[in-house]
Amino acid sequence: MNLWFTEDWTDHLRVSLRIREVLHREKSPYQEICVYETADFGRLLTLDDIIQVTERDEFFYHEMLAHVPLVAHPSPRRVLIIGGGDGGTAREVLKHGVEVVQVEIDERVVEAARRFLPTMARSYDHPSLRLVIGDGIEYVKRTEELYDVVLVDSTDPVGPAEGLFREEFFRDVFRCLSPNGVLVLQTESPLFSSSLVRGVQEALARVFPVVRLYWGPVVTYPGGIWSYSLGSRGPDPREFDPARTRGLGTRYYSEETHRAALALPPFLRELAAQP
Amino acid sequence: MNLWFTEDWTDHLRVSLRIREVLHREKSPYQEICVYETADFGRLLTLDDIIQVTERDEFFYHEMLAHVPLVAHPSPRRVLIIGGGDGGTAREVLKHGVEVVQVEIDERVVEAARRFLPTMARSYDHPSLRLVIGDGIEYVKRTEELYDVVLVDSTDPVGPAEGLFREEFFRDVFRCLSPNGVLVLQTESPLFSSSLVRGVQEALARVFPVVRLYWGPVVTYPGGIWSYSLGSRGPDPREFDPARTRGLGTRYYSEETHRAALALPPFLRELAAQP
Repeated sequence: MNLWFTEDWTDHLRVSLRIREVLHREKSPYQEICVYETADFGRLLTLDDIIQVTERDEFFYHEMLAHVPLVAHPSPRRVLIIGGGDGGTAREVLKHGVEVVQVEIDERVVEAARRFLPTMARSYDHPSLRLVIGDGIEYVKRTEELYDVVLVDSTDPVGPAEGLFREEFFRDVFRCLSPNGVLVLQTESPLFSSSLVRGVQEALARVFPVVRLYWGPVVTYPGGIWSYSLGSRGPDPREFDPARTRGLGTRYYSEETHRAALALPPFLRELAAQP
Repeated sequence: MNLWFTEDWTDHLRVSLRIREVLHREKSPYQEICVYETADFGRLLTLDDIIQVTERDEFFYHEMLAHVPLVAHPSPRRVLIIGGGDGGTAREVLKHGVEVVQVEIDERVVEAARRFLPTMARSYDHPSLRLVIGDGIEYVKRTEELYDVVLVDSTDPVGPAEGLFREEFFRDVFRCLSPNGVLVLQTESPLFSSSLVRGVQEALARVFPVVRLYWGPVVTYPGGIWSYSLGSRGPDPREFDPARTRGLGTRYYSEETHRAALALPPFLRELAAQP
């Protein structure tokens, strides 16, 4: 058998992973959910044929999305995750001993992850996590809770995730952040989505006093380099307590990579609102 | 027309770039040389169907290979480049105002680069560069010159490049390095060639007192993350003069990325001889 999953990273660049078996395929009300057994990336979750996670390289993404804002905040207690249906972001967040509310729009993704991606979805059994099935944009508009850190672990900015990249949403998040609160969101490939990155950075800068861009590798995401955008009501992630980066059982994140991720090379500095 | 160049990064992972035109194809005594016009990576040079450089992302690789050792050395004057037929490494090295000897085994690669990759091959017109067509392994065995920095910009460790990854070669390089001399070589993907990286690190540590591993992204190289191994007779690249990182006209390399490249994340620390 010579079976491949191919994603068009752009119109002109493709990646293909060898597939051993198609484990799952369903259409949810929001998207097509597939899980594959790959030849050497472990299991692969796709939504509408876009790679979300592979077991082999998900640590790059989940560690960087979670630990940079959680270590930036001086004493996080309550965390809101929007999206992140596979559970990987929650797994990293829960290492900080915090209370988590996770708002995921598509219950079927959670179910698929529970069944096929236990190393990520085990988070859903954690007593400190409360899962809400619903629309994250509506949730932050209406909640009267305050959160110390809000993480947006979304799909690409088309369809249901589109509103998660807009200033209006950032304003709603700002309102439900505690005084030292920090927002972080994944902001796609800085190589192929540079105008999106710049737009989000500028919108964040109209809402938050401190805005940072940081980056890290993710093998199976377009171009292999991923960007994260952070808006903060106070703490600057460049100033952090190194002791809090330790003992997290991470494979990419560390004191050094926290610092390195925020030290932008020239081609990324151009995209940052506050380089 | 729907034309693609596909490289098997591993047996189980492929990348494909859309091709507008095949510009050049020849068999040299050493390898098949092809140059393509891609849809959005500029021109692409392949040797035996392995991606060597694209105009769009070559800066990641050439800047990191060249500037880390050249800034690590306190006052480099004479530099030896082995391989690097496209000229991109020499272009970066020459920014330091040094004298360069470049030993490239395949004259046809140089000719192809001169004709199709002028942004790299313009180095060959620089008065401070002397090009020697020959075998770099033989050259370092026999030369009686001393060099401050030796850079190995090779193809993958199969065929003519194989000997460039061996301890015997490192010993020959050591002999022709000045007392503060530094050797650097590209050491492939740390994800897919981790035993090669570890082997080179260990061999370097049997020859050089200071050994470092560093890394950076390269979009079109397997897995998007590349490793570089450095052996030094004295200088530690972690201690460097930030002033010397400036004014180099770089897009990835900077004071911050120099530091970040040497700050290894946990999964890379395991591969380093002296983490």
